[in-house]
Amino acid sequence: MSEFSLIAQHFSRHQATNDIAISVGDDCAVVDVPVGHQLVICTDTMVANRHYPSDTPAHAIGHKAVAVNLSDLSAMGATPHSITLALSLPSYDEAWVADFADGLYAICDRYGVKLIGGDTTYAPTTAISVTAVGYIPKHQAITRHGAMVDDVICVSGHIGSASFALSQILQNQPSQLRDKLDYPEPQVALGQALRGYAHSMIDISDGLGQDLGHILAASGVGARLDLDKIPCHTLLEHLPFAQKYQHIINGGDDYQLCFTMNKEKFDQFQANFPHFSIHAIGEIVADGGVQLFEHGQAVAFDIKGFEHF
Amino acid sequence: MSEFSLIAQHFSRHQATNDIAISVGDDCAVVDVPVGHQLVICTDTMVANRHYPSDTPAHAIGHKAVAVNLSDLSAMGATPHSITLALSLPSYDEAWVADFADGLYAICDRYGVKLIGGDTTYAPTTAISVTAVGYIPKHQAITRHGAMVDDVICVSGHIGSASFALSQILQNQPSQLRDKLDYPEPQVALGQALRGYAHSMIDISDGLGQDLGHILAASGVGARLDLDKIPCHTLLEHLPFAQKYQHIINGGDDYQLCFTMNKEKFDQFQANFPHFSIHAIGEIVADGGVQLFEHGQAVAFDIKGFEHF
Repeated sequence: MSEFSLIAQHFSRHQATNDIAISVGDDCAVVDVPVGHQLVICTDTMVANRHYPSDTPAHAIGHKAVAVNLSDLSAMGATPHSITLALSLPSYDEAWVADFADGLYAICDRYGVKLIGGDTTYAPTTAISVTAVGYIPKHQAITRHGAMVDDVICVSGHIGSASFALSQILQNQPSQLRDKLDYPEPQVALGQALRGYAHSMIDISDGLGQDLGHILAASGVGARLDLDKIPCHTLLEHLPFAQKYQHIINGGDDYQLCFTMNKEKFDQFQANFPHFSIHAIGEIVADGGVQLFEHGQAVAFDIKGFEHF
Repeated sequence: MSEFSLIAQHFSRHQATNDIAISVGDDCAVVDVPVGHQLVICTDTMVANRHYPSDTPAHAIGHKAVAVNLSDLSAMGATPHSITLALSLPSYDEAWVADFADGLYAICDRYGVKLIGGDTTYAPTTAISVTAVGYIPKHQAITRHGAMVDDVICVSGHIGSASFALSQILQNQPSQLRDKLDYPEPQVALGQALRGYAHSMIDISDGLGQDLGHILAASGVGARLDLDKIPCHTLLEHLPFAQKYQHIINGGDDYQLCFTMNKEKFDQFQANFPHFSIHAIGEIVADGGVQLFEHGQAVAFDIKGFEHF
């Protein structure tokens, strides 16, 4: 199987359109960027056994490789447009590649995203790097460095589900929350809706504690987090404290958004966008890193997210 | 070593500028695209022992990972702007990463290209995926599908040098042409100069025969190639026929440009851009794939480029 036949057979579903002059099949893709917008771009890699369990279906891997990048675009408030794919495989398994492609195109099609280029190559371990391209109206990107004292800290949904699922899988137990790990849903619509509301935003990929820490470091502020206000699945609610917050604070892979905005904007947003569920879990303070509280009492907990090496 | 310290230490040299609102250090980079231009984007991956010999210095690997992508941009006639880097490593070796970063930034700086994002992760084998972003004035991209009958087929310089060097290295011989393999130079200025001249273009990464074949297939035409007109290094000139053309026709990694233009434009280009060395090596014919000639005599040779699997 040559690289070219593989691409032609599995990865050429999206051809040129109005705003994609050249798609898969040339040295590069050529794309129109809408007037008045900036280009938003990110790259994220998944390696077998490192970023997903070895028994993960190819369809889910294709989904997740796109989802984690759309999540990064969403964390800037950007509108996703297209992706490139760098796919490294230890061998050519047609059924695997077809299933992977189905998962990849399913999420792309759901968000109107086109696969416009990339390459496939041999490597001893399966690895997938996706680069995602999106757009944002000029100067409206929501960064990590805009958090302000007294901002409400919010998250977009259940935290800790993916980490809990992974812990069950690693113990060879079935998990009711397996889909949360395998098929994370990027918060694309919410990210865009938060333009003009949120002061700062990040997606939760490496753990709420560590990811919120990036906002704090970039913004030069601290945070007070109310653990009891962080939404989680009922399966996590009655776990022992250390175990529960290991998943909620230090677990990764939820791909929910964490963002800050002032109290007025928070109320306005809830009034204007009642269909989005957003949850206030604390507030930005002047300094002191992340201080944790449970029912108003300060609690100690060691924040330590995903380590890449 | 966390991913974040590694990026902060080694990959944060390019901060925000006039046209890069957000560089390394947020969920995404945010970039201005010049008015009247289209975005050009490509992704290319290098895997250790597959795309470079195991003894390749980290500095050269950093260079080459960027060079192969700038070469793809050049093959569209695009102006390179920025890159993202997906770096997978089996362990954190500070000296290796520093050397790799030096090689990567050296070629970036030479072409005014900024590293604006990406990720680093653990993987059993070293692998590097770079995505390159460039711009082109609207509707001026030079594609693979524009070749026309009677076009002159051209290349931009010596062909076969990298393949010859690789064959020496694999036989544990020193190679005078090692730099051609380790430090390929993308034809950035020539690619842009060919806007408005070339009907079709590709870069030679997998072998002249196979890469020209992509132009022919996309354009629905054939080619007559004069082997004796293909420029090569003196070290290749007196090799036995089969060996010589194995490097020149089937060898890869030269990253020269192969392009076609009509005879008038070819003469005009040489008059207007005398400082570029371009070489006519054949012509586009109606059909028949690639027909090879040597001193006017048809010769048989099996065209077979780099197989990715």
